[in-house]
Amino acid sequence: MLEELKEIVYRANMDLPKYGLVTFTWGNVSGIDREKGLVVIKPSGVDYEKLTPSQMVVVNLAGEKVEGDLKPSSDTATHIELYKAFDSIGGIVHTHSSYATSWAQAGREIPCYGTTHADYIYGAVPCVRNLTKEEIEEAYEENTGHLIVEEFQKNQIDPVAVPAALCKNHGPFTWGKDAFEAVHNAVVLEEVAKMAYRTEIINKDVKPAPLELQDKHYYRKHGKNAYYGQ
Amino acid sequence: MLEELKEIVYRANMDLPKYGLVTFTWGNVSGIDREKGLVVIKPSGVDYEKLTPSQMVVVNLAGEKVEGDLKPSSDTATHIELYKAFDSIGGIVHTHSSYATSWAQAGREIPCYGTTHADYIYGAVPCVRNLTKEEIEEAYEENTGHLIVEEFQKNQIDPVAVPAALCKNHGPFTWGKDAFEAVHNAVVLEEVAKMAYRTEIINKDVKPAPLELQDKHYYRKHGKNAYYGQ
Amino acid sequence: MLEELKEIVYRANMDLPKYGLVTFTWGNVSGIDREKGLVVIKPSGVDYEKLTPSQMVVVNLAGEKVEGDLKPSSDTATHIELYKAFDSIGGIVHTHSSYATSWAQAGREIPCYGTTHADYIYGAVPCVRNLTKEEIEEAYEENTGHLIVEEFQKNQIDPVAVPAALCKNHGPFTWGKDAFEAVHNAVVLEEVAKMAYRTEIINKDVKPAPLELQDKHYYRKHGKNAYYGQ
Amino acid sequence: MLEELKEIVYRANMDLPKYGLVTFTWGNVSGIDREKGLVVIKPSGVDYEKLTPSQMVVVNLAGEKVEGDLKPSSDTATHIELYKAFDSIGGIVHTHSSYATSWAQAGREIPCYGTTHADYIYGAVPCVRNLTKEEIEEAYEENTGHLIVEEFQKNQIDPVAVPAALCKNHGPFTWGKDAFEAVHNAVVLEEVAKMAYRTEIINKDVKPAPLELQDKHYYRKHGKNAYYGQ
Repeated sequence: MLEELKEIVYRANMDLPKYGLVTFTWGNVSGIDREKGLVVIKPSGVDYEKLTPSQMVVVNLAGEKVEGDLKPSSDTATHIELYKAFDSIGGIVHTHSSYATSWAQAGREIPCYGTTHADYIYGAVPCVRNLTKEEIEEAYEENTGHLIVEEFQKNQIDPVAVPAALCKNHGPFTWGKDAFEAVHNAVVLEEVAKMAYRTEIINKDVKPAPLELQDKHYYRKHGKNAYYGQ
Repeated sequence: MLEELKEIVYRANMDLPKYGLVTFTWGNVSGIDREKGLVVIKPSGVDYEKLTPSQMVVVNLAGEKVEGDLKPSSDTATHIELYKAFDSIGGIVHTHSSYATSWAQAGREIPCYGTTHADYIYGAVPCVRNLTKEEIEEAYEENTGHLIVEEFQKNQIDPVAVPAALCKNHGPFTWGKDAFEAVHNAVVLEEVAKMAYRTEIINKDVKPAPLELQDKHYYRKHGKNAYYGQ
Repeated sequence: MLEELKEIVYRANMDLPKYGLVTFTWGNVSGIDREKGLVVIKPSGVDYEKLTPSQMVVVNLAGEKVEGDLKPSSDTATHIELYKAFDSIGGIVHTHSSYATSWAQAGREIPCYGTTHADYIYGAVPCVRNLTKEEIEEAYEENTGHLIVEEFQKNQIDPVAVPAALCKNHGPFTWGKDAFEAVHNAVVLEEVAKMAYRTEIINKDVKPAPLELQDKHYYRKHGKNAYYGQ
Repeated sequence: MLEELKEIVYRANMDLPKYGLVTFTWGNVSGIDREKGLVVIKPSGVDYEKLTPSQMVVVNLAGEKVEGDLKPSSDTATHIELYKAFDSIGGIVHTHSSYATSWAQAGREIPCYGTTHADYIYGAVPCVRNLTKEEIEEAYEENTGHLIVEEFQKNQIDPVAVPAALCKNHGPFTWGKDAFEAVHNAVVLEEVAKMAYRTEIINKDVKPAPLELQDKHYYRKHGKNAYYGQ
């Protein structure tokens, strides 16, 4: 079942090592078939070198495995919570990519310091708080998803305009309209995290880019007046 | 038309990923035929992996497309303003290369800390201010070009001696006598930006290189008394 | 003798340049046959490009060469002390990998700032003190091993839970159940060292990850309730 | 003439891009035939991709070209001064390698923070002062050589034990018993410069490695009691 989506999710997973976003098995990509309400995700702890499309695992939105010989990613419950709350997204990526994870470990949101950021992400990339001991013990991965969703709802952040979040002391999640766009945003996030890190070193009093410049670049690429690309 | 220039501009564009200066489609190179008053430039948002010489777009100095199936780079108006004002340049590059963009995001000029810089760029690489909201709304890309030109004219900077500028919160533009030299200067700028960043970390009280050393290295490579190379 | 272990130790050694952990000959991997009480280790100062399985040297736990045409690694005595004291480990790696060595040179333990660290290492990576002049003159390599062992014993650190240590002004040692796991932990250590370095730059007041989060991630991968992987 | 030395110097030059020490043509290697008093050096400004053994230029110790179709490196006079003063060296390398050049731009010597440094360089890597305007105008490249030699003589530094120097606001020179060892030391210097940079960030109050540890590592590899390697 879902052979085409499995192929897409497989290829999107293979893009993580290609773009230098994962070490060993530290990352996973999923995609959703909204009509069927089924999610296809990387199996847990399988080396990218040995990964095949047929190993992709199918789960439903209750987190139950529907098809697959292997166990799904240990982060599956986080993916599911994001799909349930953010109904316009079609793919999700989790990595421990080096610069984005360093910001997560530092417990800081990534300010928008320039147009590279504004071209894809409208405003800062939020960093959600640590889960409490109780939340961890109750349902760590599911509550990680809840926390991201609550952060976006509380601050009225549109997950389409801000396709990324950091989990404190852990790492980033990104998403997009499909698995490939989610990987694309993971690459953007890593580059943006790297340049923000250097920007603050070069000028410790730096301020975020002016709003009108952020607006210009975001809307040059997104929405009905976009004119970037073909 | 302009088949030779298209081939040159195509190859110069392909040098950007080769030298690690672009992620995805974040860069563009153009070249000008001064006799015909026509500019050849990369099409907007096309993947480097899929780029071909025949996709290069020809525009005139009024910014109108003269030939090509695709839309020209969204930064075309900036290129045109630079060609109109700096009449000795033949090629222009825009990238979001990581270190140069970090300096741009920090809103600082890059001081000349050594001979690597002085070999190619005579003095600091200027960083122009943000455009105002009105300037952005009126004509963002064209006004970006105006701003660079004004900065050079106001400070009497020779664009041949300083073949690079940073746009605050955005990124670098470089240029040269042709598209290849513009790419060469983009590589130099990125390396110079990287070493200047590290230099300030190693010695926070560092001063620019002595003027006589800058002179020696610049004029060892440029002008009538140059003796570097064959 | 020990042909299979020689092949394993050879391949684990070759993984060091593959993962970018060594420059020239600055690293070595060993493995132990616990039943026979024999250690197989890289020969001293041999280029990785020229290394062959048959060059691996066999030594006993008294440090005497039992088989091999070449001299064993100059760090052999350190490996032996670790094998003698940490009876559940089967492989050891020493490198001068860049970030881990920088922490060692700085004389600081690496705090656990996130789940990437906690997934493999339970708590901080200790940094042992310098040997005294007398300890160096008496038996430098052997005493380096003693020092690591004493540090773990004094602070009741379980070498299975913390498979890594830094030697001040020198570099890291890592270990594991076999030579491959020891190399795996060397890669983890380098990545963790890199992100901890950046984390402290992004937030100079950063604190280690909450204990409950470290517990969750460590025990998600290790021990009887582990559920990561297949 | 000197065909064997040309081949060696050619291959040593080609090792610079292989080890990531040069961008474009920013580096050169030479070797000397002490019996004949002739130096073989890279031609000036020739791309590494197009370099051939027969292009190597032969000069005498007066700096006169003895053989070759091309002009020798613009830094030839510096090489010659070093060969004349340091009579036990057989090869010299100049690069603008990124970390070593950043220390040179910062105008600081590189302290010995660990055994990676002490294994090859006995004590700090000195950074010589800027030449005066008069010294630059008189004979820039030759006086650069004089300055390095004076620094070593004034401070009684043995050029065999410290096979490297930084020129303020410029970059590093390294040397060795032949061209290959000079390149080897250039790689060591770059790695040592990188780790020293990070070491100071991790611990801003860091001190150099204890002398007894530096002694141990240097003499483990050098001199009559050396026991590293085969």
